[in-house]
Amino acid sequence: MKIRHLSMMTCAAIVFAGPALANEELLKLEKDPSQWVMPTGDYSDHRYSTLKQITAANVKELRPVWTFSTGVLRGHEGGPLIIGDVMYVHTPFPNKVFALDLNDSGKIIWSYEPKQDPNVIGVMCCDTVNRGVAYGDGMIFLDQADATLVALDAKTGKLVWSQKNGDASKGETGTSAPFVVKDKVLVGISGGEFGVQGRLTAYDMKTGKLAWKAYSEGPDDQILFDPEKTTNLGKPVGKNSSLATWQGDQWKTGGGATWGWYSYDPELNLIYYGSGNPSTWNPSQRPGDNKWSMTIFARNPDTGVAKWVYQMTPHDEWDYDGINEMILADIPVKGKPTKALVHFDRNGFGYTLDRTNGALLVAEKYDPAVNWATHVDMATGRPEVVSQYSTQAGGPDHNTKGVCPAALGSKDEQPAAFAPQTGLFYVPTNHVCMDYEPFKVSYTAGQPYVGATLSMFPPKGQTNLGNFIAWDAGTGKIVWSDPEPFSVWSGALATAGDVVFYGTLEGYLKAVDMKTGKELYKFKTPSGIIGNVTTYEHGGKQYIAILSGVGGWAGIGMAAGLNGDTDGLGAVGAYKSLSNYTQLGGVLTVFALP
Amino acid sequence: MKIRHLSMMTCAAIVFAGPALANEELLKLEKDPSQWVMPTGDYSDHRYSTLKQITAANVKELRPVWTFSTGVLRGHEGGPLIIGDVMYVHTPFPNKVFALDLNDSGKIIWSYEPKQDPNVIGVMCCDTVNRGVAYGDGMIFLDQADATLVALDAKTGKLVWSQKNGDASKGETGTSAPFVVKDKVLVGISGGEFGVQGRLTAYDMKTGKLAWKAYSEGPDDQILFDPEKTTNLGKPVGKNSSLATWQGDQWKTGGGATWGWYSYDPELNLIYYGSGNPSTWNPSQRPGDNKWSMTIFARNPDTGVAKWVYQMTPHDEWDYDGINEMILADIPVKGKPTKALVHFDRNGFGYTLDRTNGALLVAEKYDPAVNWATHVDMATGRPEVVSQYSTQAGGPDHNTKGVCPAALGSKDEQPAAFAPQTGLFYVPTNHVCMDYEPFKVSYTAGQPYVGATLSMFPPKGQTNLGNFIAWDAGTGKIVWSDPEPFSVWSGALATAGDVVFYGTLEGYLKAVDMKTGKELYKFKTPSGIIGNVTTYEHGGKQYIAILSGVGGWAGIGMAAGLNGDTDGLGAVGAYKSLSNYTQLGGVLTVFALP
Repeated sequence: MKIRHLSMMTCAAIVFAGPALANEELLKLEKDPSQWVMPTGDYSDHRYSTLKQITAANVKELRPVWTFSTGVLRGHEGGPLIIGDVMYVHTPFPNKVFALDLNDSGKIIWSYEPKQDPNVIGVMCCDTVNRGVAYGDGMIFLDQADATLVALDAKTGKLVWSQKNGDASKGETGTSAPFVVKDKVLVGISGGEFGVQGRLTAYDMKTGKLAWKAYSEGPDDQILFDPEKTTNLGKPVGKNSSLATWQGDQWKTGGGATWGWYSYDPELNLIYYGSGNPSTWNPSQRPGDNKWSMTIFARNPDTGVAKWVYQMTPHDEWDYDGINEMILADIPVKGKPTKALVHFDRNGFGYTLDRTNGALLVAEKYDPAVNWATHVDMATGRPEVVSQYSTQAGGPDHNTKGVCPAALGSKDEQPAAFAPQTGLFYVPTNHVCMDYEPFKVSYTAGQPYVGATLSMFPPKGQTNLGNFIAWDAGTGKIVWSDPEPFSVWSGALATAGDVVFYGTLEGYLKAVDMKTGKELYKFKTPSGIIGNVTTYEHGGKQYIAILSGVGGWAGIGMAAGLNGDTDGLGAVGAYKSLSNYTQLGGVLTVFALP
Repeated sequence: MKIRHLSMMTCAAIVFAGPALANEELLKLEKDPSQWVMPTGDYSDHRYSTLKQITAANVKELRPVWTFSTGVLRGHEGGPLIIGDVMYVHTPFPNKVFALDLNDSGKIIWSYEPKQDPNVIGVMCCDTVNRGVAYGDGMIFLDQADATLVALDAKTGKLVWSQKNGDASKGETGTSAPFVVKDKVLVGISGGEFGVQGRLTAYDMKTGKLAWKAYSEGPDDQILFDPEKTTNLGKPVGKNSSLATWQGDQWKTGGGATWGWYSYDPELNLIYYGSGNPSTWNPSQRPGDNKWSMTIFARNPDTGVAKWVYQMTPHDEWDYDGINEMILADIPVKGKPTKALVHFDRNGFGYTLDRTNGALLVAEKYDPAVNWATHVDMATGRPEVVSQYSTQAGGPDHNTKGVCPAALGSKDEQPAAFAPQTGLFYVPTNHVCMDYEPFKVSYTAGQPYVGATLSMFPPKGQTNLGNFIAWDAGTGKIVWSDPEPFSVWSGALATAGDVVFYGTLEGYLKAVDMKTGKELYKFKTPSGIIGNVTTYEHGGKQYIAILSGVGGWAGIGMAAGLNGDTDGLGAVGAYKSLSNYTQLGGVLTVFALP
């Protein structure tokens, strides 16, 4: 069945067939290139479209066809969904959601604005961002900043149910896009800088009732591990694999937040995602490997039980959150056809694993500047840390200089794309280093639990803070690399037209040749782009859509109105000159060919 | 001398030739269609460009080429200036000013943000708007919300001088664009709803020193009238022509604000502008003609002394401010070549006067809905008021129903355009009626001094709240009229390409055929448009620029976050459904042909 112009009525018809089919519905819709039914494009997080009206030859003719101001400033992460004739657009706090009519240049069908305590802004680490809404069963799911998960009727915007997923007074917030799998809505939690106990939680899609909750650290019954069956690099993890790696009760405020992207392999019936930094950022204060922070999880979506795990950065000393997207691709790895999981970690290594069992196949630097570890030991899976860049080795309060990447990683949440026709991954990256000075901090619920002061800058002798690269995950090699003056903090889109799109912090939407990286087109959108490029087809025409609105971690200086060195711009000082290029904004721009 | 790509250095060179030449500079620059040196396009307020790359035939190919978010939400009135390679963009409160590099898609050369007490927002009647900056002598002049007039170095944005033009604690605010004539900067005052004593003030352009101040009401030495030489319909006004029309000291809080547009005839050495409503809106409280509120003034720019005056709405009962632009055009009037002044008043009459002497030549309704007066008596210049629509005739507190136009007039500040090739005026209009219920109010400095409650709606049996019309000012007839769902609150632009441009409250930039009104192009900008369309040439290419950002009087409901009837939406209730089309914004969109 070709669902090219699925009307809301058709959606409803599919929907009321019941939860068991919801999964079928999404599996069907994700294959329809005229729609964009989940923030990552599909369950495999490919951010790829088979649409090919827009090609490397004609993309230079692209131009905006309509625009929409969200009425909200600050960082606009994520991107819209397109279901039938309707586009769903979300905003940062106050987390408005709009249903826009594609038949009428984005006329507003309905809008939703939650009532939230604005104090929640004070416990959001990295701007007031939100990474998008999810669709399932005729509903739109939104994870509000105050960690309330809501289900809205996709047709009317009316609240269907609401569920408290966290306690903002403890620094638990919502920034990620929910993820619908089968009859469940999965949602993570933000707050690694506030000592949350990270977890992924599944709710019944119809009712909002809690289905399961899987913590990142703690006893086995909280992390939903089977000591005999859950494996790490092929071996059972054993009893209380997490508890053994924490001092005392530190796991209870141990971080491992889950604010990134999720993926799903329906054949293997596994979901994949990563956990964030252990809390605090001061490594001396939390001895041990701090499992399972900084970890890739493969879990059964029905039960939440983990099939396998892999910790990328044991005992993190740099805030290298492991939450970046897990891209599922069937590619040759070192010559052998593989059901791979590809992950570009904050720590600067591009990992390729066998997603069936968590075997580590490739771990190579995707930014040559990375210096904190020489390599990853393929037998143990552990990075070989360079002691000069260990932020703990110098003793408490030692300011460790010139660590690459900086805390915001060689890549942050901005998702990469995968193109089957090249077999390559297109990765928006940061090219930033840091000085890292830990300080002693004690935990108080709802107060920052950071414990380090940072200063960021480009790698020595260089000026570009970012690169947009093509990556061969089967060999772990950069194929081409386009330097950018600022970090590329926008999600990429790859298309069958041999074009890859991404946005820049100055505000350019760019199109490059998939094979060479050659720039084919750029357009200055109203504000810096930290959103993810989306494509869809409507009325027989291919469209490109992007949210602009500078902010997020890289843009927090601008978003929060900081200026000068006195305002704690250390962590983002490298981005200070951004204000020469762009101002705050919040606009969706939709492009097409003439 | 063709000043096509005047660099800032060239500007500076011209500038330092001294104040006497500044006038010459602007007279020269206003004739260069590649630039746009004053908000009204030229001293005659034509809003016309001789550029004709964009034509009725090819305008359908127009598309955005770059965009710029101002980082400010709420109503964006006015439009940018273009001087050489630089575009100057202003914002509503907090009144930022940006200098953007036209050679680099609007990269920010400098920005200026005044420090103002945000409480000023509480004394701005109709959103936090600002109608633009002025250029002269290498400086950019900005009238801040707090009624501080500042001069900025056009090259660096550094403050050159600053002058207090009013007292915001008394409700005196700045919203209008300053106007540079010869060696002076002229600036009005807003606050007709706070009982200000309206005046136009001239400052020395170089130093900011006060040159003269001409009040709208008061003794002759305050209003700068010569009882023998200042005329009204050809006759000397006589001694204390204003005082005689007020009860006691009421003129001291008598309104007559001067927040609109100004024009200048260098040959006649006269400036023209209008004064606003008498305060309060409750007509029973202020007997008399309330001169010279609601008046067109022709003054000598060197001395401020009035040459002639004409009061359009004596003893206003409807808030029909007379501040709309005065367009100076040499046109046939009733067959006779005339140095005309054409003015579309809030009261719904389109006036044509002889600008040399203030003789009234034409006064006809430019919206057929106008019902408050049958006609204007051409001998006395007074409107013949229909007693049914007198808001005073029914006695105090009587709710007068169905008055057309509503208080916001058949047109508000949104300026019209004039095209020499057709001899027609292109007028953005409102098509709104009202119920008007006066109530007793007493004056307290800094408190609203309104004294009437309004309810607005479209004329009976109609749904369109606006029309965009072509007007023959020589005969006083509508040539064509394009209905719009909402008031057209955007300044028009007429071009030698036979195209007229305007924006709509839903956010469309529209291009129509000058001769027929046929819609040729539209584009949905990010937010509702209350800004004025501008054109310029750069690098041999014609551009169209428009600020979007809904607000102003029509959009105040949205801008101030009002909703429902409980929030005092009476005055703008007719615009409630705007939120189905657009959200707050603040974006400049620049268009060109491919």
